[in-house]
Amino acid sequence: MKALVYRGPGNKALEDRPKPELQSPGDAIVKVTKTTICGTDLHILKGDVATCAPGRILGHEGVGVIDSVGAGVTALRPGDHVLISCISACGKCDYCRRGMYSHCTTGGWVLGNEIDGTQAEYVRILHADTSLYPIPPGADEEPLVMLSDILPTGFECGVLNGKVAPGSTVAIVGAGPIGLAALLTAQFYSPAEIIMVDLDDNRLEVARGFGATRTIKNGDGSAVEHVKALTGGRGVDAAIEAVGVPSTFLLCQDLVGPGGIIANVGVHGTKVDLHLETLWSRNIAITTRLVDTVTTPMLLKTVQSKKLEPKGLITHRFRLGQIVDAYDTFAHAASTRALKVIIDA
Amino acid sequence: MKALVYRGPGNKALEDRPKPELQSPGDAIVKVTKTTICGTDLHILKGDVATCAPGRILGHEGVGVIDSVGAGVTALRPGDHVLISCISACGKCDYCRRGMYSHCTTGGWVLGNEIDGTQAEYVRILHADTSLYPIPPGADEEPLVMLSDILPTGFECGVLNGKVAPGSTVAIVGAGPIGLAALLTAQFYSPAEIIMVDLDDNRLEVARGFGATRTIKNGDGSAVEHVKALTGGRGVDAAIEAVGVPSTFLLCQDLVGPGGIIANVGVHGTKVDLHLETLWSRNIAITTRLVDTVTTPMLLKTVQSKKLEPKGLITHRFRLGQIVDAYDTFAHAASTRALKVIIDA
Amino acid sequence: MKALVYRGPGNKALEDRPKPELQSPGDAIVKVTKTTICGTDLHILKGDVATCAPGRILGHEGVGVIDSVGAGVTALRPGDHVLISCISACGKCDYCRRGMYSHCTTGGWVLGNEIDGTQAEYVRILHADTSLYPIPPGADEEPLVMLSDILPTGFECGVLNGKVAPGSTVAIVGAGPIGLAALLTAQFYSPAEIIMVDLDDNRLEVARGFGATRTIKNGDGSAVEHVKALTGGRGVDAAIEAVGVPSTFLLCQDLVGPGGIIANVGVHGTKVDLHLETLWSRNIAITTRLVDTVTTPMLLKTVQSKKLEPKGLITHRFRLGQIVDAYDTFAHAASTRALKVIIDA
Amino acid sequence: MKALVYRGPGNKALEDRPKPELQSPGDAIVKVTKTTICGTDLHILKGDVATCAPGRILGHEGVGVIDSVGAGVTALRPGDHVLISCISACGKCDYCRRGMYSHCTTGGWVLGNEIDGTQAEYVRILHADTSLYPIPPGADEEPLVMLSDILPTGFECGVLNGKVAPGSTVAIVGAGPIGLAALLTAQFYSPAEIIMVDLDDNRLEVARGFGATRTIKNGDGSAVEHVKALTGGRGVDAAIEAVGVPSTFLLCQDLVGPGGIIANVGVHGTKVDLHLETLWSRNIAITTRLVDTVTTPMLLKTVQSKKLEPKGLITHRFRLGQIVDAYDTFAHAASTRALKVIIDA
Repeated sequence: MKALVYRGPGNKALEDRPKPELQSPGDAIVKVTKTTICGTDLHILKGDVATCAPGRILGHEGVGVIDSVGAGVTALRPGDHVLISCISACGKCDYCRRGMYSHCTTGGWVLGNEIDGTQAEYVRILHADTSLYPIPPGADEEPLVMLSDILPTGFECGVLNGKVAPGSTVAIVGAGPIGLAALLTAQFYSPAEIIMVDLDDNRLEVARGFGATRTIKNGDGSAVEHVKALTGGRGVDAAIEAVGVPSTFLLCQDLVGPGGIIANVGVHGTKVDLHLETLWSRNIAITTRLVDTVTTPMLLKTVQSKKLEPKGLITHRFRLGQIVDAYDTFAHAASTRALKVIIDA
Repeated sequence: MKALVYRGPGNKALEDRPKPELQSPGDAIVKVTKTTICGTDLHILKGDVATCAPGRILGHEGVGVIDSVGAGVTALRPGDHVLISCISACGKCDYCRRGMYSHCTTGGWVLGNEIDGTQAEYVRILHADTSLYPIPPGADEEPLVMLSDILPTGFECGVLNGKVAPGSTVAIVGAGPIGLAALLTAQFYSPAEIIMVDLDDNRLEVARGFGATRTIKNGDGSAVEHVKALTGGRGVDAAIEAVGVPSTFLLCQDLVGPGGIIANVGVHGTKVDLHLETLWSRNIAITTRLVDTVTTPMLLKTVQSKKLEPKGLITHRFRLGQIVDAYDTFAHAASTRALKVIIDA
Repeated sequence: MKALVYRGPGNKALEDRPKPELQSPGDAIVKVTKTTICGTDLHILKGDVATCAPGRILGHEGVGVIDSVGAGVTALRPGDHVLISCISACGKCDYCRRGMYSHCTTGGWVLGNEIDGTQAEYVRILHADTSLYPIPPGADEEPLVMLSDILPTGFECGVLNGKVAPGSTVAIVGAGPIGLAALLTAQFYSPAEIIMVDLDDNRLEVARGFGATRTIKNGDGSAVEHVKALTGGRGVDAAIEAVGVPSTFLLCQDLVGPGGIIANVGVHGTKVDLHLETLWSRNIAITTRLVDTVTTPMLLKTVQSKKLEPKGLITHRFRLGQIVDAYDTFAHAASTRALKVIIDA
Repeated sequence: MKALVYRGPGNKALEDRPKPELQSPGDAIVKVTKTTICGTDLHILKGDVATCAPGRILGHEGVGVIDSVGAGVTALRPGDHVLISCISACGKCDYCRRGMYSHCTTGGWVLGNEIDGTQAEYVRILHADTSLYPIPPGADEEPLVMLSDILPTGFECGVLNGKVAPGSTVAIVGAGPIGLAALLTAQFYSPAEIIMVDLDDNRLEVARGFGATRTIKNGDGSAVEHVKALTGGRGVDAAIEAVGVPSTFLLCQDLVGPGGIIANVGVHGTKVDLHLETLWSRNIAITTRLVDTVTTPMLLKTVQSKKLEPKGLITHRFRLGQIVDAYDTFAHAASTRALKVIIDA
């Protein structure tokens, strides 16, 4: 089968690989119908993800059809249409029982990282019963690919951790796909204001179309001043960090008001300064989270009831044979205006 | 009247000052019967607290008897015995309605800071109805002085923010009065382990007497290794920082397990390093809080029902005329073994 | 001044009464600009509310302008435009500190019940600082009258107690003003389905316009069957009872699914049967609540940010001189199609 | 093997039955070492439990050793010592994901009810990975038998649902094994008062030994008066119903104060009167729950850390061959003073 393989830092190739086989009773083999590319795939290609060895098939998002299941799989059968979660969860360990699937002792984020992933014709899924989600018959598959990772990530790490609530004021720093996923799902809770901060005019325009009540292009560093003016000098109730660099995390420290929350979503590569000399007395919380995908069933309901319409995140479409081009388009988002690309497998 | 006055960095004196007078309808004048000294008073004396100007009467803890009340005070009358909260709260502003008395727009921590405090024969209390708490008739006043600040601080900032729960594992870094207050009140929730970390043998011995299940003298930096061994490699559910320097906050980052909380209680004077490059994916929370004293009514109930016995925190007793000696004793805790000192006013 | 006075069961009159005066330091006198009539006023007129004595000026809703304030009032001054809460709260007692203003030991629902109310040119408000809410300058006053009682009632007793959440399924039994207030505010949380149940075609049509995803006219008692069909046999996550008679409360017991909540909003006059022989094992909760109006500041923000537009609840307008007609219109809602009537004072 | 078999209403017998066999990949066969008898077993014997057919081996509590496991079982292996949960949970269905194991679509309370149970030498356990809990090596098995059902029942249905908290006032109506389990676990949260109400002097004496701060023998119906006197007229924060008849549920309605909770634990056979005509405005909650056993891992930790010592609940010991005598002893608790009986299998 065709598969996109990580060949070491800076290197990837579309290769021919054997179709995966069942290895343990909880496994399923899924024929991938649609997949996509994540910012994390670009991190891997930079060599930033030590757990991902050369030779690995990339990809942790997608939808598909069950091809075969192991003896221990009871909730799924061949032919079922399923959403593939980026997180594999056994459903049995202490972490899974607490809803922390991301830290499953025999799963977590392994797909396209420690085991072969979804940018291929077939993929083996661990703990299939608790890592795959049946898709409603006849559902449009494209928006559902957005539920493999970015929507639960924006929602769980940003919106839920940020305790977005009716009447509250939210700032989202970073209007990339994850920041936009936070923007879309923040609206589940009817905040009074959602202020989007970015450096890219196009993404801020997209954000306005997706429901941001204000946008700030922070080229001149005036975001703090603007937000303070908007909030009577207080700062926001929730500052959602969706970039992953020190400067945006620092910005969030300046944006958050007393009693507020900094909900970190970004993947960070270095330490940051935490200004406890001012924050110690401001009654704030800072949260971090690798997405658990525990809200996937709920998000599926919101898509079905049209409270969430993630299709607008998709800007480009490719076939699996063109996946190298798809990576190029996705990697050069500033010029291509790419948000999420769909790949037909 | 006699009062302990801050005379600028490094300087304090017991002086004769006029008795305070009612200034607004919500005020009460309280005749102080017992007060104490807080670590924050030492910070002020070092010149670290910019809001506290020379000439200020220090002190934000104490019990006393109502001397007079303004026209707007309805819940208290002269002769009532009361506990003085370190936080003055109007009960009306947005922050007070959210239970964030610490950020009351016309109160907060002002006593012995922005207005004259309790280390005197009399003190004027703002927003008396919501900043003073009636003491049960005949109650032992000494333990109740501990409820002005350190017990709500250890409890709200450490135990409640740390979500201490039955069966959980807690590390408290710092076995000073605030750390011990966290230790006492953590036991309200029956955690499986409370591990106390400090450098002082005497304080660790006190901690064992107060209910710590383990103590670690971290002179050799082995605390992380010990705690990891105790927790099957996971780390603790709650790491309570009760010191306020970068090294202890760093230690908490190493102690906390996935899904855990770092509850900061310490007063910090400088920024700290936050290792988001490892913590971003560990599903933790970091909380900060200036005590709100919203739990004072509840803490009073736990003292009455003997679930909380804070008297053991008191190591020395003085009269107001000896308050300069009391400061000396309290400031040299390593040699005097002082925890809290009681001053009879 | 003109005032609508309760003269005993079945009897009311527009009378001339002296303008109220300040009685205690926390009082304010408010010149009423707009008021309305509540279902509870009709209960009083039937003689069902024992605490309301003949001679009482009715009304507990309205907006107005501060005329004068007592010495203890600090947050308001003459000339301020204010929303009058139906609940008077001292902000000081144990219940107020817990956010249970409805059970304030010196307040609660007293207005137009135990003390004279708002269906008059002027009204005296107890605990003014914590019972009146400043209105944004230039705000449209009519929709804000809806925030005195019915919106916080529908929201707190129905939506918050019912824990309405993204993706959840909600049934609201009763499409009168309170049920519609629950319908409007349930949408803050993006439930997947809001099923409205009533007997009146007009009200169900209004409900559809206000956002109900389904409506059921339960004349033939088929609501349970319909709802079970819609929910795969499970029943709803939240059943909001907004009528107050045994049959509707019984219906809610049949509608609620395992793990769900029956949030009672209705005012009941008799006991009801609770089928614990089936419900004991269904992991449900039943909640009751007299509105606390603790969410009034938040609701004001949602009106300002247009997340809530309550003006559609207003069907008729009268002047204070016509208030007896207004009662007639409101009392015969089936024929007049009245929801809420506005009275210009 | 020997097994206690339900032979229809009023009828049971110790019989010889074939050893159970694995039927599906998630099954385990457990050699029972210790089991016990539950009040529910007596209900079955009265013919009150329609789902339990004659011929069924009774029992849903116990500890044992894994004899064999199906192909899908990954967390357990033959020879492991395990606690058997009274609830079988697949860990995969919507209810299990929400922590409502009691309503697992392919499990729930089936053991000794819809499938053969634990009062036998061997038992087949469904969904073994998520329905059995490894026991620490060398642990005393007797107290752990109490964790199969009554401790999680008292804790989840009574204490957690009742939101018992530091400083709160709790009434537990019924001092049988379940009420005592609630009493033991309520103390995890340091309430100020735990008032135990029963008719049996012996059980009240046991309750005092187990930590009740007050006991009331309610023979003369004076419990309400006593509790009101103790609570300044307010009533309790949590009223835990641990009997299951209308009169005790009515008593709870009289005991609960404004803002309080009635946490129903009892198994009810008939409807009860709910006095909504007074309760509608009292801001209370009523909860019901079939135990989910989601807290079993936490309870195991509290037993290991000695915060919970359930051994005192065991009053009598028998061998499996004497189980008919054990039933007699347990069924005549008033004269035998039996609480829980241990049966060595």
